[in-house]
Amino acid sequence: MALIVHKYGGTSMGSTERIRNVAKRVAKWVRAGHQLVVVPSAMSGETNRLLALAKEVAPGQHTDSVSRELDMLASTGEQVSVGLLSLALQAEGLEAVSYAGWQVPIRTDKAYTKARIESIDDKKVRADLGAGKVVIITGFQGVDEDGNITTLGRGGSDTSAVAVAAAMKADECLIYTDVDGVYTTDPRVVPEARRLHTVSFEEMLEMASLGSKVLQIRSVEFAGKYQVPLRVLSSFTPWDIAIDEEARSGTLITFEEDEKMEQAVVSGIAFNRDEAKISILGVPDKPGIAYNILGAVAEANVEVDMIIQNISKEGKTDFSFTVHRNDYARAMELLKAKVLPALGTDSLTGDTKICKVSIVGIGMRSHVGIASKMFRALSEEGINIQMISTSEIKTSVVIDEKYMELAVRALHRAFDLDQPRS
Amino acid sequence: MALIVHKYGGTSMGSTERIRNVAKRVAKWVRAGHQLVVVPSAMSGETNRLLALAKEVAPGQHTDSVSRELDMLASTGEQVSVGLLSLALQAEGLEAVSYAGWQVPIRTDKAYTKARIESIDDKKVRADLGAGKVVIITGFQGVDEDGNITTLGRGGSDTSAVAVAAAMKADECLIYTDVDGVYTTDPRVVPEARRLHTVSFEEMLEMASLGSKVLQIRSVEFAGKYQVPLRVLSSFTPWDIAIDEEARSGTLITFEEDEKMEQAVVSGIAFNRDEAKISILGVPDKPGIAYNILGAVAEANVEVDMIIQNISKEGKTDFSFTVHRNDYARAMELLKAKVLPALGTDSLTGDTKICKVSIVGIGMRSHVGIASKMFRALSEEGINIQMISTSEIKTSVVIDEKYMELAVRALHRAFDLDQPRS
Repeated sequence: MALIVHKYGGTSMGSTERIRNVAKRVAKWVRAGHQLVVVPSAMSGETNRLLALAKEVAPGQHTDSVSRELDMLASTGEQVSVGLLSLALQAEGLEAVSYAGWQVPIRTDKAYTKARIESIDDKKVRADLGAGKVVIITGFQGVDEDGNITTLGRGGSDTSAVAVAAAMKADECLIYTDVDGVYTTDPRVVPEARRLHTVSFEEMLEMASLGSKVLQIRSVEFAGKYQVPLRVLSSFTPWDIAIDEEARSGTLITFEEDEKMEQAVVSGIAFNRDEAKISILGVPDKPGIAYNILGAVAEANVEVDMIIQNISKEGKTDFSFTVHRNDYARAMELLKAKVLPALGTDSLTGDTKICKVSIVGIGMRSHVGIASKMFRALSEEGINIQMISTSEIKTSVVIDEKYMELAVRALHRAFDLDQPRS
Repeated sequence: MALIVHKYGGTSMGSTERIRNVAKRVAKWVRAGHQLVVVPSAMSGETNRLLALAKEVAPGQHTDSVSRELDMLASTGEQVSVGLLSLALQAEGLEAVSYAGWQVPIRTDKAYTKARIESIDDKKVRADLGAGKVVIITGFQGVDEDGNITTLGRGGSDTSAVAVAAAMKADECLIYTDVDGVYTTDPRVVPEARRLHTVSFEEMLEMASLGSKVLQIRSVEFAGKYQVPLRVLSSFTPWDIAIDEEARSGTLITFEEDEKMEQAVVSGIAFNRDEAKISILGVPDKPGIAYNILGAVAEANVEVDMIIQNISKEGKTDFSFTVHRNDYARAMELLKAKVLPALGTDSLTGDTKICKVSIVGIGMRSHVGIASKMFRALSEEGINIQMISTSEIKTSVVIDEKYMELAVRALHRAFDLDQPRS
C-alpha cells in the first residue's frame, strides 16, 4: 500500500463526463490498495469566467483589497471541482470527503493572487485516509493566518499537489495532464523526439523555465526542495488501463543521486521565439555601465533574460541583452530617450526575429566539450550564433529565428536524443 | 448613524450590471452616514446550475456524506456574489470586505442542506464597520463546529440576513426583493389591494405559512424571536431615489406592542389552491380514531394541514382533513388499503377542486364577531363553506376553488382593506 497524490488539470475536469472518468481512475487506484489524495483544478474556463465577471463589475486598478476579493471569487472554481469529484467518487461506491484549502488548512503568506504556501496541517487528511476515505483538496488556494482566502496564481494547482505530497510524505505525486510526459524536444518540430522515462528535477527546472509548459516551475522547485517523486502523465488514456502500466507511464521527475547514473549527458532541447535582442554598441567601458543600462530597463518593469557584455576594444564595449518581444518596443523607446544620451552613444540596434535554443542536461556538469559539440553541430548547418549563455546544466544560443527548427533537429540528432537511453 | 443590514435576492444580483446597481444603492446609504452590512444571494440561476452539475456526476440517493458535498458545491454561489459585490463597492470608492459564512463565523448545527444557525460571532464585522468598511457576508450558509460548510436550505439568505441583524443588534434589516412590499391580498386577484405600511410579525408568519411568498417563513420566525425590525422593499426602484423615501418604502414588519395600536382588525386575505380535501364518513366515534387515521398518513410522510372532526350522531362521526394536492392520490390509496378496513367503513370521499381562503389579523384577538362577518360576506355571494379552522389571528375556510377570486374580493371589501388605514 502506498500513499499517492493525484493532480488533475482543468481539461481533465472539463465536463461532468470527464469528472466521472477521473473518479473511475481514482477508484481503480484505491481498489488496487492505495491511499489516495486528489487535487483537482477548476473546470477549464471557469477561472477565466469568474475573472471576466470581476472585470465587468470593477474595471479599475488592483489594490490589495481588490486582490483579496479576486481570491474570494477565483477560489470558488476549485471548490466546485472538489465537491463534484467527491460526489462522483461516492457514486462509484467509495467513501470520499472534500476540503477547501482553509479547511485542511493549507497556510500561505498574505500575498493575494500570488501567495506562497507556508505549511500544511496533515492531521485531518491522515485521519480520513486512515478511515478508508479518499481525500480531495482544492488546488490553487490556501488561507492566511487571519483566515483570508488566498490563491497561488495561475497554474498553482501543480504547486498545491506537490506541497500536499511533501507534507504527507507521499510515495509519489502523479500530475495528470493533457500531454503524456516530458519529451527530448517538441515532437511537432522533431518527429523523432522521445518521451523521457525519467528526468532530474534540475533538468526539469531548466526545461520549465525555457518554455516547456508541462509543469508550473514553482511546483518543480517545490518537488526538488522536498524531494517529492513527481510523475507527469496523460489523463487521456482510458481510465481502465492496467494500473501497472499507468504507474510506469509518463515521465518521472527524480531527485535521487543514484537515478542520475543512467542520465544521458544531454536530456533535451528547449527553444522559444518569445524574445527580442537589443544591442548598444560603443559603450564606454567603465564601472556602472551595466547598471546604467539595465537599471532603467528594470525600473520600467521590463524583464531581461540573457545579458552579454564582451571584452572592450579601445575603451569601448558592446552590450547586448534579450527581452520579451512584447516589451521590445517599450524598451527601445526607453533606451533612446533616457539611456543613450547619458552614455554618449547613439548606436542602438535591435532584432525581433531571433530565437533561443538550449541544450539541457545534468550530465553536462561532469562532461567537457558539450558546448563545443553544440556549436559544431550548428556550424555544420551554416547557422550563425549571435549570443551564447551558459549555466551548469544548460547552454543557450540566440540565432536567427528562421533557423530554429533546423537547429533543434540538428542538435537532437547530434546528441543522439532519438536513441533510447541504454 | 444607524447600523443597517441589506439583503439582496438572486434576481437583484442577477447580472454584473445589477450588481453594480446594488453597489450604488449601498453606497448611497453609506454616504448618508449609516453603517452597512450586506447579505446577497447567489446570482439567479447559479444554485440550480451547480445542483444540476451534481446530478450529472452522481444521480444517486442522498446520504449524509453526499449532502456534505452538495453544501461544498452550492455554497460557492454566494461566495461569488460577495466577491463581486465587494469589488463593485470598491469601484464605487468605498472600502469593502467580504466574508464567507465560515469566516465570520456563522455557526450552524450539522444538518447539511437544511442547517440551523446557532450563533454568529460579530467581532470581525464590528471591527470592520468601526474602520469604515462595508461588510458583505454570504447568505444561505454557515459552518459547523468541525469546520464543515453547511447551507440553510432554499431561501436561507433571508434567514442569514435576519440572523446577522439580530447578532449585530442592527437598527433595521432591509430585504430587497422583486416585490415592493406585503399587500392586503394578491393584486392580481384584487386590483384594489393595498400595500401595507406595517404588519405585525405574527400576521406575517400566518401570511407566509399561507402561501404569501414574500419572505421565507424561518426568517420571519427569527425576526420575531430576536425582535429585528424587518422591512420588505423593492430592489427595482432606481438606485438613486431619495434615501428618506426608500427608507419609508415597502412594508415594515414590526414586533412592538405600541405599533399594534394602529393595526386594523384584519390585515390581509391569504389564499391558495394547493390543497385537496379528504373525508371519511360514518366513523365509529371512539378514542383513538384520529390517531388511527392520521397516524397512517403521517407514516407515509404526507403532511396534513386542516383537520376537522364534527360532533357525533348515533355513535358515528365524519372526519375530514386536507393534504397537498401532490399527495392526494397517495393518501387516498393508503386510506383505502390500510385504514378503512380497520375502521369498518368504506365511505371515503375526496375533492381536489377546493381552495383555502383566510383572513389574517392581529386585531382579531381582541375583536369578536370577525369570523361571523367573514361567513356573512361569503354567504352573500352564495359561496358554500366546506370546512372552517381558526387560530388566534386567522380564520380559514375551504370552499369550491371556482369561487376563490370571488371570495377573496368579497372579503377584501367586507373588511375595508381597499381603504387606507387611518
